[in-house]
Amino acid sequence: MATAGKVIRCKAAVAWEPNKPLVMEEIEVAPPQAGEIRIKIVATGVCHTDLYHLFEGMHKDGFPAVLGHEGAGIVESVGPGVTEFQPGDKVIPLFISQCRECRFCKNPKSNQCEKGWAAEHYDVMALEESRFTCKGKKVLQFMGTSTFSEYTVMNQIAVAKIDPAAPLDKVCLLGCGICTGFGAAVNTAKVEPGSTCAVFGLGAVGLAAVMGCKFAGAKRIIAVDVNPDKFEKAKVFGATEFVNPKDHDKPISQVLAELTDGGVDFSLECVGNVGVMRSALESCTKGWGVSVVVGWTDLHDFSARPINLIAGRTWKGSLFGGFKSKDGVPQMVKAYLDQKVKLDEFITHNMTLAQVNDAIELMKHGKWRKSLLRRRVRPR
Amino acid sequence: MATAGKVIRCKAAVAWEPNKPLVMEEIEVAPPQAGEIRIKIVATGVCHTDLYHLFEGMHKDGFPAVLGHEGAGIVESVGPGVTEFQPGDKVIPLFISQCRECRFCKNPKSNQCEKGWAAEHYDVMALEESRFTCKGKKVLQFMGTSTFSEYTVMNQIAVAKIDPAAPLDKVCLLGCGICTGFGAAVNTAKVEPGSTCAVFGLGAVGLAAVMGCKFAGAKRIIAVDVNPDKFEKAKVFGATEFVNPKDHDKPISQVLAELTDGGVDFSLECVGNVGVMRSALESCTKGWGVSVVVGWTDLHDFSARPINLIAGRTWKGSLFGGFKSKDGVPQMVKAYLDQKVKLDEFITHNMTLAQVNDAIELMKHGKWRKSLLRRRVRPR
Repeated sequence: MATAGKVIRCKAAVAWEPNKPLVMEEIEVAPPQAGEIRIKIVATGVCHTDLYHLFEGMHKDGFPAVLGHEGAGIVESVGPGVTEFQPGDKVIPLFISQCRECRFCKNPKSNQCEKGWAAEHYDVMALEESRFTCKGKKVLQFMGTSTFSEYTVMNQIAVAKIDPAAPLDKVCLLGCGICTGFGAAVNTAKVEPGSTCAVFGLGAVGLAAVMGCKFAGAKRIIAVDVNPDKFEKAKVFGATEFVNPKDHDKPISQVLAELTDGGVDFSLECVGNVGVMRSALESCTKGWGVSVVVGWTDLHDFSARPINLIAGRTWKGSLFGGFKSKDGVPQMVKAYLDQKVKLDEFITHNMTLAQVNDAIELMKHGKWRKSLLRRRVRPR
Repeated sequence: MATAGKVIRCKAAVAWEPNKPLVMEEIEVAPPQAGEIRIKIVATGVCHTDLYHLFEGMHKDGFPAVLGHEGAGIVESVGPGVTEFQPGDKVIPLFISQCRECRFCKNPKSNQCEKGWAAEHYDVMALEESRFTCKGKKVLQFMGTSTFSEYTVMNQIAVAKIDPAAPLDKVCLLGCGICTGFGAAVNTAKVEPGSTCAVFGLGAVGLAAVMGCKFAGAKRIIAVDVNPDKFEKAKVFGATEFVNPKDHDKPISQVLAELTDGGVDFSLECVGNVGVMRSALESCTKGWGVSVVVGWTDLHDFSARPINLIAGRTWKGSLFGGFKSKDGVPQMVKAYLDQKVKLDEFITHNMTLAQVNDAIELMKHGKWRKSLLRRRVRPR
């Protein structure tokens, strides 16, 4: 391409500091270096982790940055030594890398590659290096991905090449939330055919967890949320029953125990609230119940009574649904193309990158499941 | 036998009330009813759970009772309908039953039969009914077993028939502590060949966990205790390294992370302390570390940071080492007879039932690993 080897000037939504709206800026995106790929981002979802970084004060040193980690795009150019990708390939940037060489990549039990930003710069949720500058300043690449930009540069260990038939404005959702919820049920909880499951929280991750439970053959899928408006959508993904904790004056674990003769086989916490994590564990049956923490929070400890574990329950956690990222995402894209998993049904708003602050407002006020930001269509 | 069908008057150590020494009394032991077995107890261990009931004020309504749940004996007589046992059989009373009919028994993942005392009368740690009376009062059978008596009566679903060659004054330890620790490593943690393990707490349960790790093929077994006197014995059971948290001014999880390139594969908490439970979880490697709560406490919540689970750790608990009791205990007896597991090395004191209060004092002051109470030899 004509842009290969040159700095690209393009639009990006820059988070200059915490707790402020993003600012649409023109940024400079350097050419890819050895082992890197420059990607034209075509569509991106907005995920709660973006807000978490921006508004919850966890990573004060992680600014300025370009947020966004749930995108899809097309390879614009590749750096020296890259043979796996070519310009024109459809790709999904990955916030978890898969180097295939570290002891985590080599162990089939883990997807937590130690080569990515998370291993070294968790405090700022970005690598120290960046290919972005704006107004003379380095701008960090949040979660390594920075999909709220028209172009980004990624290391090839954190990019998945996907089926050329894939619609990028749908499969971008596989970059985070949908794989996270679906995989938590299928890979981490290892939901079994005929089992009874409970999913706490019916945001995009929770709905994807419901879908994962159904995919794995669960017989009963009890969707739990304090907002009854979410129940209809949960049915679409496979929920068979609905419980609103507000409708009961006893603990939700007791409600579920009564519904299920002692508790569910699998529970998935998709909220990111330590109280809900405890309820999800307590809602499992003794003997073999498995509860998986999917929702993200780092503000408080979670807790429970030792007898909850001693009685035979297992407490696990899931990051990106346990998928090894480069292997898993193309498989999920194929599952979507084969109509084995749904994506279209998650999307509630179609907006443009320039509307990113509106999308964030929708998310903050819970009026949203998945806003999709498409690239502005520009004549070439 | 001449005693069959009749009330037996015999000696037992009666706990009349919490926080008081046991009293050697003559009690009446009723004949076994349908499905029951009357057992002459030959030897019994003393376990911390006995003290927990007696001194920690958890079960104030569970008195008077005969404690003891780690015994072995010989069938004296059987009640109507019992065909599996005959007088003279060597047996081990089980504090967890295995009815083979309930949904827990039928599920290979669980050993928590719902027919025993625990399911219905956990609050007093005994069934409502008892075959014991003393001075005109009903005396409860603690954990269903009451091995601090010369005779006890058990339901056949809670008795394991064992190899006639088994020495009862050794295999009695398989009634609780040794199966608990060993099984926690082998059955619950599922320790893998070549793995690195840490065992927190080197009481009998902890040493049995060390033995379980070795049996499962662990390459490194790091024994952790604040009492360095226990380290020599831990070697006997297979420990390869020793860490005393008091020797370090940083958290034990950090010490173990440095020793093991990021954390152990499996950790077992054999103390019953929620702070140690947290340390044991944090000492596991991210990605695939499994931590098992083996020690018992019900006084406080345990807690940790959500990221500990999200990063790929699993938190489990183990009761009686995950063994289905009637199936597992005879197998462990066989493993002892085949010299695949050790028992003799656990025993520090040989005493008589009449010395039970001395044994309890030893245990309270930590000068003890396993005291064994043998039946008094009486001329017949």
